[in-house]
Amino acid sequence: MAKKILPLNVPDEVELAFYEALQSGDIEQLMGCWADAEEVVCVSPGGPRLIGKPAIRQVFDAVFSNGPVRIKAHKVHRIQTDVMAVHSVLEGVELMANDAPQTVWVWATNVYARQPEGWRLVSHHASTASDEHISESAGGSQLLH
Amino acid sequence: MAKKILPLNVPDEVELAFYEALQSGDIEQLMGCWADAEEVVCVSPGGPRLIGKPAIRQVFDAVFSNGPVRIKAHKVHRIQTDVMAVHSVLEGVELMANDAPQTVWVWATNVYARQPEGWRLVSHHASTASDEHISESAGGSQLLH
Repeated sequence: MAKKILPLNVPDEVELAFYEALQSGDIEQLMGCWADAEEVVCVSPGGPRLIGKPAIRQVFDAVFSNGPVRIKAHKVHRIQTDVMAVHSVLEGVELMANDAPQTVWVWATNVYARQPEGWRLVSHHASTASDEHISESAGGSQLLH
Repeated sequence: MAKKILPLNVPDEVELAFYEALQSGDIEQLMGCWADAEEVVCVSPGGPRLIGKPAIRQVFDAVFSNGPVRIKAHKVHRIQTDVMAVHSVLEGVELMANDAPQTVWVWATNVYARQPEGWRLVSHHASTASDEHISESAGGSQLLH
C-alpha cells in the first residue's frame, strides 16, 4: 500500500492520497499520508483532539468499519513555504439521512511538512461549516471570535 | 500599538499577543499578529472562511464592537520547524447565558510562519469542542471522518 502513495513530492500529492484513502476506506494509505512524528495532531468534527498516529489510526479504523467516506475536496486555498504548507479545504461529505443522500460541508485545515521521505500531513483540523458560509466572503454574525 | 508586540521572536510570543489582543479587544494588536500576506486564512466557529487581512479585520471589528472576548488558551500542543509552527490550542471562551457565565470550549489550530519582521500568524482555524472531548484521549463516536 505504502508504495502506491510514495514519494509524495509535493503537498498536493499527499492531499490527493489522503482524500483517496478516505474515499476508499484504506487505512494503510491514510496512515501513510501522516508524518512519522509523535506530535501529529487531528481534530475531526465533534471529536476529541488526537495526538500521535496510534490514536489517529484507532479512530479512522472505527470510521472505516462503517465503510469508506464519501468525501470530496473543494476550494483548496494554499499557503506554501519550502518546508511546510497549509491547505484550507472545503470538504463535501455525503451522508445518508432518511434514505436520501445529503451533503455536509466541512472546513478543513491541512498542514503538510517536508520530510526526508517526502511531504507528509502533520495536522488535520476539520469542522462543520454552515451552508450559508461556504463562500469565501466575510460575515460578522454569531462568531465566538 | 504595533511596537508593543514586535518583534515576536518565537511563535509563543505571537500567540500570547494574539490572545491578549482578543482579551483586550485591541484590533491593531490583533492585526499586527497576522502576516502581511494575501493568503492568510481564518475560520472561526460557525463562520465563513476569511482570506486576507481586510476580511479578517472586518469580522474582528464586528466581534470587538460587542466588547473584548473573555478567552483563555489551554493545553498548547506544538509542532515546530525553523520557519513554521503549528499550535493546537484548547480555548475556553466565557459567554453570558441566562445572566450566568458559561465556558464554551473551542479547538484552535494556529499556524505561524517566520517572516523577515518576526513570527506571524498565517492560519487560524477554530471550532467548538464538546465538553466530553476536551481531553486528549481518542474516541471513535460520531465522527464524520
